[in-house]
Amino acid sequence: MSTEATNHIDKPNLIDTDVHNGMRRSEDLLPYLAKPWHSQWLATGTGVGSPYYSTVGVIRKDAEPDSGGASGSDPTYMIKDHLDRYGIDYAILTGASVLEMSINPDCDYGNAVVAAYNDYLVDVWLSASPRFKGSMVINHADPIAAAMEIDRMGKHPDIIQVIMCSGARTPFGQRFYHPIYEAAERNGLPMAIHPGTEGRGIAGAPTPSGYPSRYMEWHNILPTNYMTHINSLVCEGVFEKFPSLKFVGIEGGIAWLPHLMWRMDKNYRALRDTTPWLKKFPSEYIREHIYLTTQPIEEPERPEHLVQIIQMSGCEDRVMFSSDYPHWDFDHPKLALTAFPREIRSKIQAANASKLYGLHTKPKLHLEGKP
Amino acid sequence: MSTEATNHIDKPNLIDTDVHNGMRRSEDLLPYLAKPWHSQWLATGTGVGSPYYSTVGVIRKDAEPDSGGASGSDPTYMIKDHLDRYGIDYAILTGASVLEMSINPDCDYGNAVVAAYNDYLVDVWLSASPRFKGSMVINHADPIAAAMEIDRMGKHPDIIQVIMCSGARTPFGQRFYHPIYEAAERNGLPMAIHPGTEGRGIAGAPTPSGYPSRYMEWHNILPTNYMTHINSLVCEGVFEKFPSLKFVGIEGGIAWLPHLMWRMDKNYRALRDTTPWLKKFPSEYIREHIYLTTQPIEEPERPEHLVQIIQMSGCEDRVMFSSDYPHWDFDHPKLALTAFPREIRSKIQAANASKLYGLHTKPKLHLEGKP
Repeated sequence: MSTEATNHIDKPNLIDTDVHNGMRRSEDLLPYLAKPWHSQWLATGTGVGSPYYSTVGVIRKDAEPDSGGASGSDPTYMIKDHLDRYGIDYAILTGASVLEMSINPDCDYGNAVVAAYNDYLVDVWLSASPRFKGSMVINHADPIAAAMEIDRMGKHPDIIQVIMCSGARTPFGQRFYHPIYEAAERNGLPMAIHPGTEGRGIAGAPTPSGYPSRYMEWHNILPTNYMTHINSLVCEGVFEKFPSLKFVGIEGGIAWLPHLMWRMDKNYRALRDTTPWLKKFPSEYIREHIYLTTQPIEEPERPEHLVQIIQMSGCEDRVMFSSDYPHWDFDHPKLALTAFPREIRSKIQAANASKLYGLHTKPKLHLEGKP
Repeated sequence: MSTEATNHIDKPNLIDTDVHNGMRRSEDLLPYLAKPWHSQWLATGTGVGSPYYSTVGVIRKDAEPDSGGASGSDPTYMIKDHLDRYGIDYAILTGASVLEMSINPDCDYGNAVVAAYNDYLVDVWLSASPRFKGSMVINHADPIAAAMEIDRMGKHPDIIQVIMCSGARTPFGQRFYHPIYEAAERNGLPMAIHPGTEGRGIAGAPTPSGYPSRYMEWHNILPTNYMTHINSLVCEGVFEKFPSLKFVGIEGGIAWLPHLMWRMDKNYRALRDTTPWLKKFPSEYIREHIYLTTQPIEEPERPEHLVQIIQMSGCEDRVMFSSDYPHWDFDHPKLALTAFPREIRSKIQAANASKLYGLHTKPKLHLEGKP
């Protein structure tokens, strides 16, 4: 067998870039959390409620572990029910309710809980399988503390990303957040955002015109916050200041991208003297720095339309498959991308994530269950 | 000459659906405004400032009338500088700063000013040329009063639309606004919204994550509020309750439409039991009720991409040309649509607006200047 053939066989075939791991019980966090916060954690959790209720639930009931507990709370069951079932080489773990800590009003509590979660993540999940890779969670409401946390955790070999919730009081390009990006770049980690906190906690209204009435309407419109953040990151010059920073928009949709790129470029032609730090068209920064995950992938009546949209925006190398396991709107790894031509499909299924996260070879499965 | 040929020649060739007419001086409104409001109008105008400053200005300097005053403030000059220059059969007048009255905190003041403006519109503009057609302005913060105003003005033969600003405290589908739609439908008038008030007055932050730093970034992201309102109008069942209502999104972009339609339809499949009043897919309501104007039209490097997007969303019959005269980002009537195939171009240039507004024949120009 030639070296080339060996390399080909050794490459990951399927990387799932959004898999939600949760705790079995709130008590699971206590060994990692300083004592003064214990009673608050047990009494209030993240402290962030939601006015929006999904009638189908947010967690898939059919993914509940044999051992009991909520879906996504048992590493061994997740391996069997998700990774083994679909032949997933790597699952990028993105956490669960702990993402909400950035929109809790108390920064100190937020910092304590995300740090505890990151230690729990390493102990309970990343040690369970070389197939699990971790997104360390930060509290974006306290960027200096978040940067220190990135320095504390970022060198762990199985931490491959920094994640924060997309709900926020100010757009993510603003200089308030720059210490976070400086630390992510210093540690060679992509930044990622995840939706679901819009309009909750201290985040303010989830649309420019206040609060939608119901979960479906709220969920439909979440991608507008992604457009907001990407617009801000580019216009504020984040990618000039941190040229090797990559930014992943998880679960925020894809098909709005051409619109945003075209509108930004058109306005830039007329208004560029207000952003003298930009050295090229906004769309060029997007093409170089912004990655998007697929789920919930748009499903046009004619599936080739989505392929065309991806080609229009030139993001074939920056769209990555995700299932959102075990959430209600899960995309099936084998069915979600069938409309894509083989070459684009294999990029989306594995090659793009493989490159971004440095996962160039398949995991060493003989290490599974042997921390 | 056959009747058919006559009809063809008699049809409008170019309708501009977003032309901004303004007052020459604040004092122009006083003859139409009740005395108690005079000093407030002269001292505060709409009372709505803006934190965002366009370095290129908002009004085209090269469109200033010979007679002095701001661009867009002289009917005779507008006819010469815009309608005659480009062979525009009809200009749909959309007003100017008066649109901001809905985000002034005082409803009574808002109601008084928009009513005065509507009388001024008829007197000064609609009487100046049969080529001018008027959008009557309402104060959407007081829907009952707005409905009364629609009944007062809506039957005027040259009032062909009801317009309101898109900046708002709650999404436009909510029942608070239904009296407006009931009155618009009763008077056979389309509703229209116009951007620019986002994040100003009482409207709240212009993004789900607060305030962008600068004009360009704010302007880039305005269409997200259109996505918000269309999502709300559909999900709240406005088009089931008011089945003949048409809704025009002026100046909010086009290319985000496929994304929104696909995302709404995907979610509807799972969550439709929360909106039992809907009888079909969200995208079907959009296809039947939502119109969009072109300016500022997205300008992809490969112009055929925009044509593809319009075809994907099935809105060839609901996109209407607009120039936004005399604003800074004006689209040239002859240049903006050159990439479109002839058949789609002629629909966008005139046929779609002709049908929506009932402007089936060219104006009788011998009436111009003879009120």
